[in-house]
Amino acid sequence: MAELFKQMTICGVGLIGGSLALVAKRDRLVGRIVGLGRTQSNLDVAVKRGMLDFATRDPAEAARGADLIVLAVPIVTMRETLAALTPHCAPSAAITDVGSVKGWVVRELEPLIPAGMSLVAAHPVAGKETTGAAAADENLFRDRRVIVTPSVRSTADAIAKVEALWRATGARVERLDPREHDALLARASHLPQMVASALAAALEGEKVGDKLASEYGASGLRDTTRLAASSWEMWRDIFATNREAIAAAAKLFSATFGEFQSAIESGDIRELERLFNRGRAMRERIK
Amino acid sequence: MAELFKQMTICGVGLIGGSLALVAKRDRLVGRIVGLGRTQSNLDVAVKRGMLDFATRDPAEAARGADLIVLAVPIVTMRETLAALTPHCAPSAAITDVGSVKGWVVRELEPLIPAGMSLVAAHPVAGKETTGAAAADENLFRDRRVIVTPSVRSTADAIAKVEALWRATGARVERLDPREHDALLARASHLPQMVASALAAALEGEKVGDKLASEYGASGLRDTTRLAASSWEMWRDIFATNREAIAAAAKLFSATFGEFQSAIESGDIRELERLFNRGRAMRERIK
Repeated sequence: MAELFKQMTICGVGLIGGSLALVAKRDRLVGRIVGLGRTQSNLDVAVKRGMLDFATRDPAEAARGADLIVLAVPIVTMRETLAALTPHCAPSAAITDVGSVKGWVVRELEPLIPAGMSLVAAHPVAGKETTGAAAADENLFRDRRVIVTPSVRSTADAIAKVEALWRATGARVERLDPREHDALLARASHLPQMVASALAAALEGEKVGDKLASEYGASGLRDTTRLAASSWEMWRDIFATNREAIAAAAKLFSATFGEFQSAIESGDIRELERLFNRGRAMRERIK
Repeated sequence: MAELFKQMTICGVGLIGGSLALVAKRDRLVGRIVGLGRTQSNLDVAVKRGMLDFATRDPAEAARGADLIVLAVPIVTMRETLAALTPHCAPSAAITDVGSVKGWVVRELEPLIPAGMSLVAAHPVAGKETTGAAAADENLFRDRRVIVTPSVRSTADAIAKVEALWRATGARVERLDPREHDALLARASHLPQMVASALAAALEGEKVGDKLASEYGASGLRDTTRLAASSWEMWRDIFATNREAIAAAAKLFSATFGEFQSAIESGDIRELERLFNRGRAMRERIK
């Protein structure tokens, strides 16, 4: 495959940024890969693993010569990072990101994109419980969904090239409107996080007599609360930037949980069966 | 180890009953093992796997000579099964069960226990997603909790022998009051089931535009809804026989989820962080 970009500068060489660097390096998808980071030890790991041609903590140095900027930093720090980069990169550079929320990213970043440059916001729906360049995995995106959300500052050429890059990682690329993306992910990703955290929080310290209830759970409790172990830093950004869509998703869940509660309280086994089977039908579909 | 019972008759040779038969056979914990079942093909599997000395669909034949009866049938059918067995088993037989609810079992079975016999209700907190004698596993109980809930119809001798049997499977045996058991399990097991089912039911058919939201989930959605694939037959019994404790647990969750909702709606990130970290603390403890 011909090189898609001369230089890809990845800002934030963590799990997602690092995995993209690894596969781009392996398959020569871009000419040169530069990593921008805050923590020298993490950059050292990235260099040692061979995913970067050059690593730096200086934004100006990182941006120099870049015709693709990948923002893989926490969402709420993207504005600041981008502002430090654009004065130094190629005048027609494409800017993309890997944030889990897209409406906020498009709205907040578009005003910062200089004339001639292009924003192609994207969200690779992939993850692991581990973080940092040490966790990067060249197969992380294989068969996973990457959602691209074009906007007014996206040129057809930049969209095509960013999509080609993601397709080359093995991902399935799909285009959505940023608001549609945020509403879908609020339901399928942010809501499960909130439900798992709320269940775990409800059981924290909950006792019957002198026994801690959570100690009586088995694999079912562990599965259902697994997401509660996620990092607050990442979710803080998601909660802060996708508030309205998450509130709507929470309402949807709350109404259904309320139906379960009423059926339990009134001993309406037929209604419980209907709700239970409704859940089973959904679960069968995603297994 | 000396034989604890001359003949153990297991009613319901499924995952739990079959696994108990397998380990009892392997380690000669009892003299003879008889299986009572409804489905000949499942009994044939049990016989072929060598876990039973004798298999039958006739309660009278199954009970004859039994000094231990293990009820491993659905909770709501235990009364009927027990009534068909007691006229035929040894006059001082011990009766135990493996049901996930204990207050109901003790309350409903005690009146059916003839003088001279003893009830020792128990709950092995173990399971897999598979069912039937084919899924039986001699290591299923290793390091798992078995909760014994003695009651007025439990003699010290029968308690000691039933506990010794479970201890010999590798399980950790613990005694609880039946109501305490039900309150603990409502929180640690029945509530997660309800939450997972409600989340899956809320997302069933839920669309944004023409996109099905559940298709945008990743491993987090799968983990959080895994329990929604459970069998309705088993949960119907649990919901029906532990209604009040489950309703109380649901209220507890509902209150905490409501706190999350308010914090999201008002954009109170500090309060969200407090709730999120509370959930994290619980999850750290059970991992």
